[in-house]
Amino acid sequence: MRDWIYPHFDYQPKRPLFLCVLSNTDTGKIPGVSAAGASPDLTDYTPSADAELIELHKIVTIPAIPESPEGATTPAVVTKAALSLSEIPALFVTSGLRRKPAIPYVDINGSPGRDIRSATAVPDAAEIMERSALLGKKLANFSDCIFIGESIAGGTTTAMAVMQALGYPGKVSSSLLNHPMAKKQEIVDVALDRCAASFGSMRSDPLGALREVGDPMIPAALGLIKGLAGTKVVLSGGTQMAAVLCAADALGIDGDVSIATTRYIVEDRNATFVETVEGLGRSWYMADPGLERSKIPALSCYASGSAKEGVGAGGAVLAASLRGITQQEIVEGSDRVLMTVELPKG
Amino acid sequence: MRDWIYPHFDYQPKRPLFLCVLSNTDTGKIPGVSAAGASPDLTDYTPSADAELIELHKIVTIPAIPESPEGATTPAVVTKAALSLSEIPALFVTSGLRRKPAIPYVDINGSPGRDIRSATAVPDAAEIMERSALLGKKLANFSDCIFIGESIAGGTTTAMAVMQALGYPGKVSSSLLNHPMAKKQEIVDVALDRCAASFGSMRSDPLGALREVGDPMIPAALGLIKGLAGTKVVLSGGTQMAAVLCAADALGIDGDVSIATTRYIVEDRNATFVETVEGLGRSWYMADPGLERSKIPALSCYASGSAKEGVGAGGAVLAASLRGITQQEIVEGSDRVLMTVELPKG
Repeated sequence: MRDWIYPHFDYQPKRPLFLCVLSNTDTGKIPGVSAAGASPDLTDYTPSADAELIELHKIVTIPAIPESPEGATTPAVVTKAALSLSEIPALFVTSGLRRKPAIPYVDINGSPGRDIRSATAVPDAAEIMERSALLGKKLANFSDCIFIGESIAGGTTTAMAVMQALGYPGKVSSSLLNHPMAKKQEIVDVALDRCAASFGSMRSDPLGALREVGDPMIPAALGLIKGLAGTKVVLSGGTQMAAVLCAADALGIDGDVSIATTRYIVEDRNATFVETVEGLGRSWYMADPGLERSKIPALSCYASGSAKEGVGAGGAVLAASLRGITQQEIVEGSDRVLMTVELPKG
Repeated sequence: MRDWIYPHFDYQPKRPLFLCVLSNTDTGKIPGVSAAGASPDLTDYTPSADAELIELHKIVTIPAIPESPEGATTPAVVTKAALSLSEIPALFVTSGLRRKPAIPYVDINGSPGRDIRSATAVPDAAEIMERSALLGKKLANFSDCIFIGESIAGGTTTAMAVMQALGYPGKVSSSLLNHPMAKKQEIVDVALDRCAASFGSMRSDPLGALREVGDPMIPAALGLIKGLAGTKVVLSGGTQMAAVLCAADALGIDGDVSIATTRYIVEDRNATFVETVEGLGRSWYMADPGLERSKIPALSCYASGSAKEGVGAGGAVLAASLRGITQQEIVEGSDRVLMTVELPKG
């Protein structure tokens, strides 16, 4: 049996920092593609609600905790438990986000991503990456190990589009139990057609691919990696972050960058997380939050493949484990967070 | 003769961080009160231009470098020189700012401050302070010595109003050579009348004073101090930051907080920086940027009392000196910054 953290993470961070990029993409509002929000219109608010949950243990901007149409609660609950137990500070970064959270956040600005089927998705991708690199360079002064998660509803579809435009094989995962893969591929096909692209045709113009069929999270994460050159970076996420690694590869952005995700992503047979990451020559880490032991269905359903990952949950659990937090503490902590989170009255 | 840094700063920061709060107040648009911008309408842009100058060595949001009606350039030039020479990272925090800078910044949100003569100036002062404390608490993980400056046009008038509402004697300084003190007192009198207050009448309700006659910078700075309890904090500014110390005193916010400013403030005979700070039992430090030796009139005029301080210049120079930067390097560096800053074309 594998350890709950696998393989061993061979570094003890002195001043770890958990970053999380919050973005919107209208691609996420296409009915049926995203589970990050009970309805497509609510997905604009999901990232801010995730951030408020983690920073305030309270949700301010929407009346309910984000959950998927299948009833899985947001993985921010697990991230919150991990960061609180380990006392690792979080910093939220907004890039193309419509509804700003009621906490202090670093604003990279940028417009929300458009529907990749009908428009150039992120016209300001280069500017986002540039500003984000500035932030990364700054943060390198203060932390020796930075975990970077994301909250963007619909992000696996844009991740898939970017991977295909850049010519990386591999399948993305889904936060839904019944992965709407055909629907996603249809969206990607229309998007690539729109900009006269096809599998691999934008390999030599990665920025063009991000601009045409990406989302505002991807250039923000890439800029952070670029600015953090010399600092240990652990991308915290599943196939979306794997797509960020693909884009970094295409752009020639290097550095000490690995990726950490949950067991639910590693074991997703419909996706190719491990193959994609290993194909790039990068290290991956898996954290098993042990949610099959949760007393709450909205969390225990993760173990059967709902939600799976997001808001950097896998990386946050890995980071917490490096400070001695146990799997059982993560399970109990997640239950406690979900049972005690404060919601707006009314 | 005094040393150029006086008195000796008895601590060697390991990971210093320069924070700067950017805010707007409509009080600053009353004709004749502020020098931070060539015309009242441009003062909305001044803080962002200052931040861009420091972070990018380039101004993006307005066509020219901020300067006073008297022709003094922004003190951000000195701050930029000090931080670049010493390689101390800066982080900008926006609180009630209309025009956001083209750099990554931490957004505390909050509405721009209203004209204190006609309206409750900062209705969300408590929320700003709360969010700002959250940020301070976070930053305490990463730095052992934090310098906090400000850029808010018209801030000395609101500082004066807050001091008087709280019952602290003392006179604020001005960025203008001919200090419009009578004009400022007239504004403060109207403002206090509006909320049925008088000298000292709000002593037991300091938050009320910030809300009624303050500006969005003050609660942001106070929140940072509160959240940073346990970390060394050096407020970087003149009489506006002295007013922040007064408000901290009234609110019972304690901590290892001192204040650093330029020689031009310490020697301003129309103001009472030293008396105010010593009256609170706080330590002050003075940095002499030596600008009488500048080759550029827009900087050498500081030595005869124009501009004087702002954007944390005094604190930034002090911080740089702790890394071995000399006064001559500050003078030459400031000249170089001003001569080479990139401006928008057209």
